[in-house]
Amino acid sequence: MKSNNRPMILVTNDDGYKAKGLSKLVEVAKEFGHVVVMSSSESQSGKSHSITIKDPIRYKLVEETDEITRYVIRGTPADGVKMALCSLLDRKPDLLLSGINHGTNSSSSVLYSGTMGAALEGAIHQIPAAGFSLTDYRPDADFDASEPFLRQVIQQLLIKGLPQGICLNVNIPAIARDQIRGIRVCRQTNGYWTEVFETREDPRGSKYAWLTGSFVNREPEAEDTDEWALRHGYLSVVPVNTDFTAHALIGSMKEWETEKVDNEGRS
Amino acid sequence: MKSNNRPMILVTNDDGYKAKGLSKLVEVAKEFGHVVVMSSSESQSGKSHSITIKDPIRYKLVEETDEITRYVIRGTPADGVKMALCSLLDRKPDLLLSGINHGTNSSSSVLYSGTMGAALEGAIHQIPAAGFSLTDYRPDADFDASEPFLRQVIQQLLIKGLPQGICLNVNIPAIARDQIRGIRVCRQTNGYWTEVFETREDPRGSKYAWLTGSFVNREPEAEDTDEWALRHGYLSVVPVNTDFTAHALIGSMKEWETEKVDNEGRS
Repeated sequence: MKSNNRPMILVTNDDGYKAKGLSKLVEVAKEFGHVVVMSSSESQSGKSHSITIKDPIRYKLVEETDEITRYVIRGTPADGVKMALCSLLDRKPDLLLSGINHGTNSSSSVLYSGTMGAALEGAIHQIPAAGFSLTDYRPDADFDASEPFLRQVIQQLLIKGLPQGICLNVNIPAIARDQIRGIRVCRQTNGYWTEVFETREDPRGSKYAWLTGSFVNREPEAEDTDEWALRHGYLSVVPVNTDFTAHALIGSMKEWETEKVDNEGRS
Repeated sequence: MKSNNRPMILVTNDDGYKAKGLSKLVEVAKEFGHVVVMSSSESQSGKSHSITIKDPIRYKLVEETDEITRYVIRGTPADGVKMALCSLLDRKPDLLLSGINHGTNSSSSVLYSGTMGAALEGAIHQIPAAGFSLTDYRPDADFDASEPFLRQVIQQLLIKGLPQGICLNVNIPAIARDQIRGIRVCRQTNGYWTEVFETREDPRGSKYAWLTGSFVNREPEAEDTDEWALRHGYLSVVPVNTDFTAHALIGSMKEWETEKVDNEGRS
């Protein structure tokens, strides 16, 4: 790891090591420091914060220069972050960047996202971390328009850092650079995916289904949400908390508390 | 689905359809309504909120009586909930219960937990939902002591429900029933898993590693946390939010906002 005195930037993604979005993020990250890439041999889309418990995690050092150190692993994005932090790197990276994902991770998609799973893992280990996603699922999506905004966010992360336990969910609208109106700090939109299961039978008569969904926005008019920002030409930046507690509810839930139960709880 | 006018209770887990903890949860849930079980053919531990995008999801109806409807699927816990809600059930269930997990899901384990992934999916779809976990990983763990407390929580969930977007993370200490001191409403402990990667070489010289970790509690003295409650003989109940936004930060992050960038962001 020849990082000298430059920042060490850990880069990962969930679309596999060949993804165009990863290449763009690595290209920009290299302007700021020594880049260590941990990416998966296969797509890890929808893997959320999964970790691999029952199988071994394969890994291979595939490149090592003054500018970049690159590993390919067979594991989830969160596995890769854990492995880098706890085993492969000789010090804590200064920054963790995940993406650029092919497809949006706004609203409740943050819960399913492998890209954001990696960013959350960074935040748990107190590393300033951000996941980046473009609202275009195609393998050949155009990431060029996002470049100057990536630089802005990376620069601010290196200068200001983030509070403990917090990472950023950055979504980028897939529009021309001169149409991007700027960056908005937002909250996660209240929305959900409603699924259509295409049910089929295999040649032996067993049933299977393909999951395909469409997004429902419960608050399309709310101007402080990430969905609104994206639809209006802004990059959305949502500060995401690794503490999932609904703190505001704890007081009002005191009535759920009980001391010892004497009966069978059937009261 | 012969649920008559009784509540319909969707039950799932992440340890597979044969798990002892699932049997206990189904047994207690049946006292309260018609139970629909969606469980996986294999263990889904550590699967977080993953969904299956690239493979088909296999499913099979294996039991249908007045008391219970049971499916086995090949997919993640969140897949199972989605499939039940969007495809298999003729109406929205009154309750979603996930578990009882073999092993704790307190503190930051909530982020990796398939059990809690299912509960969060229920909350996204506005169903009162709770994940239950016992602090004993063994397949033959004893779930009997938890029975009266399960009844209490289920009863309160049916009567009071939960606010939109919230589910419960219930952890149960693996101690004798008369030693359990009661239920405490808590917040998620600030803690993390530090991993030890046991690195090996396969017979062909390729490297692989097994992930094994130990938990580090950053605030062992904090009496309002789930870890503290469990160590002191209480069941911990944490209200968990599907909105991951760190709302308190949004105001102070306004300086991250920019309008159009004219240069290349290299300012």
